[in-house]
Amino acid sequence: MDLTDLRAAFAGRLLVDADAMSPFLTDWRRKWTGRAVAVAQPDDAAGVAAVLRWCRSQGVAVVPQGGNTGLSGGATPAAQGHSLVLSTTRLQRIRALDPVGQTITVEAGVTLQQVQDAARDAGRLFPLSLAAQGSCTIGGNLATNAGGVQVLRYGNARDLCLGLEVATAEGELWSGLRALRKDNSGYALRELFIGSEGTLGVITAAVLKLFPLPAAQHVALVAVPSPAAALALLALAQQRLGAELTAFELISEACLALVERHVEAARRPLAEASPWYVLVELSSARGEAAATQGFEALLEAALEAGHASDAALSSSLAQFRSLWALREDISESQGAEGPTIKHDIALPITRIPDFIEQTEAAIARHFPGLRLVVFGHLGDGNLHYNLSPPRSGLSAAEFLALEPPVNRLVHDAVDAAGGSISAEHGLGVLRRDEAARYKPAVEQRLMQALKQALDPLNLMNPGKLLGQRDLNHHHASET
Amino acid sequence: MDLTDLRAAFAGRLLVDADAMSPFLTDWRRKWTGRAVAVAQPDDAAGVAAVLRWCRSQGVAVVPQGGNTGLSGGATPAAQGHSLVLSTTRLQRIRALDPVGQTITVEAGVTLQQVQDAARDAGRLFPLSLAAQGSCTIGGNLATNAGGVQVLRYGNARDLCLGLEVATAEGELWSGLRALRKDNSGYALRELFIGSEGTLGVITAAVLKLFPLPAAQHVALVAVPSPAAALALLALAQQRLGAELTAFELISEACLALVERHVEAARRPLAEASPWYVLVELSSARGEAAATQGFEALLEAALEAGHASDAALSSSLAQFRSLWALREDISESQGAEGPTIKHDIALPITRIPDFIEQTEAAIARHFPGLRLVVFGHLGDGNLHYNLSPPRSGLSAAEFLALEPPVNRLVHDAVDAAGGSISAEHGLGVLRRDEAARYKPAVEQRLMQALKQALDPLNLMNPGKLLGQRDLNHHHASET
Repeated sequence: MDLTDLRAAFAGRLLVDADAMSPFLTDWRRKWTGRAVAVAQPDDAAGVAAVLRWCRSQGVAVVPQGGNTGLSGGATPAAQGHSLVLSTTRLQRIRALDPVGQTITVEAGVTLQQVQDAARDAGRLFPLSLAAQGSCTIGGNLATNAGGVQVLRYGNARDLCLGLEVATAEGELWSGLRALRKDNSGYALRELFIGSEGTLGVITAAVLKLFPLPAAQHVALVAVPSPAAALALLALAQQRLGAELTAFELISEACLALVERHVEAARRPLAEASPWYVLVELSSARGEAAATQGFEALLEAALEAGHASDAALSSSLAQFRSLWALREDISESQGAEGPTIKHDIALPITRIPDFIEQTEAAIARHFPGLRLVVFGHLGDGNLHYNLSPPRSGLSAAEFLALEPPVNRLVHDAVDAAGGSISAEHGLGVLRRDEAARYKPAVEQRLMQALKQALDPLNLMNPGKLLGQRDLNHHHASET
Repeated sequence: MDLTDLRAAFAGRLLVDADAMSPFLTDWRRKWTGRAVAVAQPDDAAGVAAVLRWCRSQGVAVVPQGGNTGLSGGATPAAQGHSLVLSTTRLQRIRALDPVGQTITVEAGVTLQQVQDAARDAGRLFPLSLAAQGSCTIGGNLATNAGGVQVLRYGNARDLCLGLEVATAEGELWSGLRALRKDNSGYALRELFIGSEGTLGVITAAVLKLFPLPAAQHVALVAVPSPAAALALLALAQQRLGAELTAFELISEACLALVERHVEAARRPLAEASPWYVLVELSSARGEAAATQGFEALLEAALEAGHASDAALSSSLAQFRSLWALREDISESQGAEGPTIKHDIALPITRIPDFIEQTEAAIARHFPGLRLVVFGHLGDGNLHYNLSPPRSGLSAAEFLALEPPVNRLVHDAVDAAGGSISAEHGLGVLRRDEAARYKPAVEQRLMQALKQALDPLNLMNPGKLLGQRDLNHHHASET
């Protein structure tokens, strides 16, 4: 393919060499690998638009990519090799920071960590927080509507975004970089591009919300007898702490045991094991004394009401970090045990106890021996509902062959409970057809109509997000 | 027109008599009056879809209407009389309330007040709050993305909505009534319908977020020397109170004087007049003592720093209400002075002091004698930037003839400051063309493409929201 015009069309790098392209063609977990005509890395938003114009003129499909840390294969090109990877990592400028107005304007390639750091340097908090923050880009966070551990208080990426700049499929630049808390002057274009996984346009910059840094933060590991007790504790915490409750994470005993086995420094601060735990974080504008006092009163009330059987409250930054590490190290510890089957599901919060009980029983019945590794953002109704193979008796291949029927069991249960099969990881290719299976036909037609309207040539990340529906599948909500 | 098929198509009322239709054909401020083929009032969501199918088959345009309390003429039919008013006020069911999951599922015709009351009866808060809450419907609130006085803490209608049920232009019912805090399984259809003012579909039901009722609430009227001081006080309040800060309203001395003149019970609690005031509300989960203490510490610090010159803090529910009344009675008091010219504008918060100073000077220069009545939600960057005629020397007609050039001056200044000409009232017909004047051409093309995709026959509230752009106008952001 003649790339002369493309090379001349924008400032930045154009990679065509196989070695140079290689890091952009495989996702970080090495689950998907594709091929590409080239990898374009423009230096600025105008360059992104120019690349899109070239692609349109040549009929070349575009795969937008940020930090390439996604979990659903949304940023990996297809195997055919006819598409171009458009990497936004060189869009590196922080364009503005307004501490009083509490906004920051950044280009798509700035990493989440860099946004957090810039905010902190100005005495402000950018609360989006997730494991990949050192490498993931804010453009990718917005394109996938990333979540993380502070969603309970501050919302997901969508809720933290005030304005967007987007290069459209036509190769035009839409400047919607409004630093406004309110704007009712037309359709919610910003919202539509957020979470569209690069299938409608490419986000090149964004205005994000900042918050005051909390004056004090504490975290507690609380042993709870059951998910139902965890839910009762959540309600109590919301009532007593209001918006000072900034995280509420559910952890099963199996998770904690895995972390202790694989992370040397990990030490649970509670004497006795409990079937479930929650990690509760409080962030207060009121200072240390008020924070500690509020937290202690909550824990006392929880113990008294029987929602909790024991609790350990952090009293130093080191303890704060080591308690959080017990939660953050679950994924890696599970990985150390062999292959995993994962689900990123959302449920109406009050249905979680029944879901956990019934789904565990169903898995034990249909897939005896599989080990459940269940944790997640209980305050958001978001569970990482994972499985590991039995300690012996099943090869990795045999275990992974169970993935489709296990997915079916779990996702059917999620659908029956009014949940979503993708809470925060997006659809990409991993959950594209699965989502189509469960979504009402009307919703899929509406989504297809929007795709057709904004990307009539189907050049924006084709094959991602929008799945083909199995028309023989009879959807429950349409009976 | 033969309405036999329509009458048979749905359960509910069909009004064709002029007297019966009349309340639906004029907005409540009597600014716009139209005509209609009929007014349909289905009893349920299926009826709404059926009416839309009939309209589609007949090529009849539909004007969706909730409580008919809008300020921008978005729910009034055109004068030609070819359209049908589709009133959702009989969709009256509260379908579900989950106090632990903190959600309520309501049909579109439930009034905002009824939602608030149902939440309160369950010990929960539905925080959307605005003057028309006794008559406006939740469907209308969502279709226009309504704002109000608690947006600073809880967000606008958009931020309070988890799921939607929508009757599409094709007359299908999309059930997106998900009670999920997270859901990344496709395009943000919910967000697109919210704020689309009935031009893409008709909202028939919604799942809304609830919050714990605060344990204590206080409000203070604070005298501040300038808008810049008000802004400094805002930053201080955010730092010290965090999410306990639930309202931050700016009020000019002229506003307060108007309220005192026209509302008998109104009494300002401060000895000396000040050019500006802010009404600060604190809502705490921590109880009375903590709330009072936090508020007093804030006010002391503000006085010490020179951000404030005096302050009165409510110490009873009666005082809480009478302080709030000083803010809430401004609009009506201004109305008692004669005709008004109003602007509902949003600005980046930090630009507000300069905007106020410079725009006041420009108005004094170009329109000497006009009186400014400036107040609004400073914490959201949303000003109600209103004008009244001079006490004498200008007839009502002469004053109102100034509206177009005054709009131009104010909106040009808003645009130059990166603001929006509609913060919370929507576009309707009032601001439709004005918005088109200031929006980038790319954005308008994207909006038109979405309209075409979801309403290809242009039957959904035609003539609203989407304006014709004056192509001779040269937009600043496109230079």
